[in-house]
Amino acid sequence: MRIEIVCTGDEVLTGKIVNSNFSWMSQKLEDFGLSVIWGTTVGDDRDHLLEAFRLAAGRADAVIVNGGLGPTVDDLSQEVAARAAGVELALDEEWLARMEEFFRRRSRIMPPNNRKQAMLPVGSEILDNPIGTACGFALDIGKARFFFTPGVPRELRRMLEEQIVPRLLARSGRQTAIHLKRFHSYGIGESRVDALLAGVDELVPDGGVKLGFRAHYPQIETKLTVRGPDMAAIDAKLAPVVAEVRRRLGNFIVAEDDQTLEGVVLAALAGRGGSLAVVENFTGGQVAGRIAHLPGAETVFRQGLVARDPVRLRVALGLAADVPDDDLAPLAAAALRAASGATHVLALLVDLDEGADRIDLGGTIAIAIADQGGVTLRRARILGGRDWVRLGAAEMGLDCLRRHLQGLPVDERIDFEKA
Amino acid sequence: MRIEIVCTGDEVLTGKIVNSNFSWMSQKLEDFGLSVIWGTTVGDDRDHLLEAFRLAAGRADAVIVNGGLGPTVDDLSQEVAARAAGVELALDEEWLARMEEFFRRRSRIMPPNNRKQAMLPVGSEILDNPIGTACGFALDIGKARFFFTPGVPRELRRMLEEQIVPRLLARSGRQTAIHLKRFHSYGIGESRVDALLAGVDELVPDGGVKLGFRAHYPQIETKLTVRGPDMAAIDAKLAPVVAEVRRRLGNFIVAEDDQTLEGVVLAALAGRGGSLAVVENFTGGQVAGRIAHLPGAETVFRQGLVARDPVRLRVALGLAADVPDDDLAPLAAAALRAASGATHVLALLVDLDEGADRIDLGGTIAIAIADQGGVTLRRARILGGRDWVRLGAAEMGLDCLRRHLQGLPVDERIDFEKA
Repeated sequence: MRIEIVCTGDEVLTGKIVNSNFSWMSQKLEDFGLSVIWGTTVGDDRDHLLEAFRLAAGRADAVIVNGGLGPTVDDLSQEVAARAAGVELALDEEWLARMEEFFRRRSRIMPPNNRKQAMLPVGSEILDNPIGTACGFALDIGKARFFFTPGVPRELRRMLEEQIVPRLLARSGRQTAIHLKRFHSYGIGESRVDALLAGVDELVPDGGVKLGFRAHYPQIETKLTVRGPDMAAIDAKLAPVVAEVRRRLGNFIVAEDDQTLEGVVLAALAGRGGSLAVVENFTGGQVAGRIAHLPGAETVFRQGLVARDPVRLRVALGLAADVPDDDLAPLAAAALRAASGATHVLALLVDLDEGADRIDLGGTIAIAIADQGGVTLRRARILGGRDWVRLGAAEMGLDCLRRHLQGLPVDERIDFEKA
Repeated sequence: MRIEIVCTGDEVLTGKIVNSNFSWMSQKLEDFGLSVIWGTTVGDDRDHLLEAFRLAAGRADAVIVNGGLGPTVDDLSQEVAARAAGVELALDEEWLARMEEFFRRRSRIMPPNNRKQAMLPVGSEILDNPIGTACGFALDIGKARFFFTPGVPRELRRMLEEQIVPRLLARSGRQTAIHLKRFHSYGIGESRVDALLAGVDELVPDGGVKLGFRAHYPQIETKLTVRGPDMAAIDAKLAPVVAEVRRRLGNFIVAEDDQTLEGVVLAALAGRGGSLAVVENFTGGQVAGRIAHLPGAETVFRQGLVARDPVRLRVALGLAADVPDDDLAPLAAAALRAASGATHVLALLVDLDEGADRIDLGGTIAIAIADQGGVTLRRARILGGRDWVRLGAAEMGLDCLRRHLQGLPVDERIDFEKA
């Protein structure tokens, strides 16, 4: 079934509000195996609305229209729907009574302009809105079934789930389930992930697995979308593909599904009764800031120390003034471990290049992890400007800690570092 | 000029990611007096992309296409653009060399599939992307000028501002200059800002000033868009309105234009030869993380200390074990001032409520600022769940420091705190 979404309203079109209704609807429909093939956004403009409805009616089997059902003069959905369907608007007495009751129960008198919300195209089927005054309705325009929904997110969500999804599933005559499996990796670029995973989706011969990627530096998200008649069939399809993705991306997978890198680190520490302290300079508290506030970190995150000046860092840690900068990370990690009593300390010290913030500005990174077994050291160099180096250094520091906690090599070369 | 936006990609169409690129582009264009009249979203599908390009070419004067310029097989924008324009794809040697250089400077070899990113429709004008490998380009399709942009937000943003907006303004043939004046406020909600500023745009009789808002918790951005024949005329129009906005929002304005709250704090400290240390608990290093990495902070930001456990905090600062939690913030600020030698110390301690993370979960906030004059204290309570409390506390801490440095009252009541 070909489904389209038409979002209406000047606020959405001009970007005053981010259109999260669209992504919510589309994702919810995907959960039921229903795919949106086209999205349109137009403002509160009669000609544009009419053209959008006609184009969608010509392409789709079902169209969900969001917004434009309110009481004000710029809410035009019913009027334009009637015009597109070639019918009149008529007062729906039943909805008018519902609205009057809605206001009465809140001890208010219904303002006269709300009456407009009960004017529906003749032949419409009402889609109930138990929590608002905007009346949803369904109507044929051309060969497509149109579903008109309110712009208020909580009203839309309830109407879509309770009223529209069942109607769409009935029309599609299908009952497939869908599942999204995600892997978060760090250290390999998108094109290399793509190359490494070439063909994994073909491990399932019926083409029921779709492979996709999303890059948000420094991580890459790899996604497997799987469809099947039910979850048991999906699990059977997915198992060999998941195993193969894990094998090919290996140590570079930092987390899966809703996990995060920092959450994995926290869980690994908590799982062994461990605790953490962190020393940072240029990352300025951003490593601590990803872990320390998480639920469960109260007892695991013992201490964070930030200083930009290596002299100050030595003083704060009680290190000798003649410790060379190059040796600072391992000594700082060991000193903070002794002072804080944490089982693990991550020292992440970046020596940022001098000069203007250009794309080839780099930083030399020293990562030291101290635990009861001693101090593990990793050095690297990243180019790409201040922000790039800062984000990359924070990620590399956390990832080294993850690798150390998981017994993986911390010095595996990554794509983002300079040889 | 009629401008349309076509957003491409299965991730946006299926709702896996919220399409914030659309709202950002539309709002940025509005800032320059350019209005988007139609938005289309389609997936990585040749037929749908071609139909979307043809429909937009038939309606608009200019079309911005976002996404589909990456190296992977599902990135189809160049291919479909060539087909829509009726031209071939050809290798752009200049962009290929740029990409090879991009990888070389990062000490990486360009993977072979990146070559695809240098295949452009014949006759395209390159739109530079100084921070990525996706090559932007402009091309006529039908009567419309198409601008193809990368999906990565920071690459898109730079390309739109530096490459596309000037071309659109030139094509629009408008001789007027446009200026955007921005105020960033903290502590008053959007509806109160709106009410406080009612009528300020009418101080200029010709209607050449447009007032707008954008809320991104915890700050509100107030925007004045001004048009005039030249910058002198704009400055003359703007001056009384700017003065009036400053008068009405008063102490709640934390920064203007490209300034940030943390940048204002850093500049105020640097301007008096001051230095800063910060103590945090639940905010976990996020206050330090906003300041310590900024250019110029090397010499100003002396030290950050993070601990979740008040016992650990006392030990780290050498405070007596019997100091009550309620007195911890001022004593911690004073102790860290003595230890770090910073002229100013901000102690931001949040006592988060027990219980599940619900909308009514709150936190009790103690903010202490120590300087040579003693310790200034501010207490507050914020409700709204873990993330809301954390963001709000970090903002309130920084804003109290700004107010203190600017000689403003630190205890002025804000809209986000519970009475």
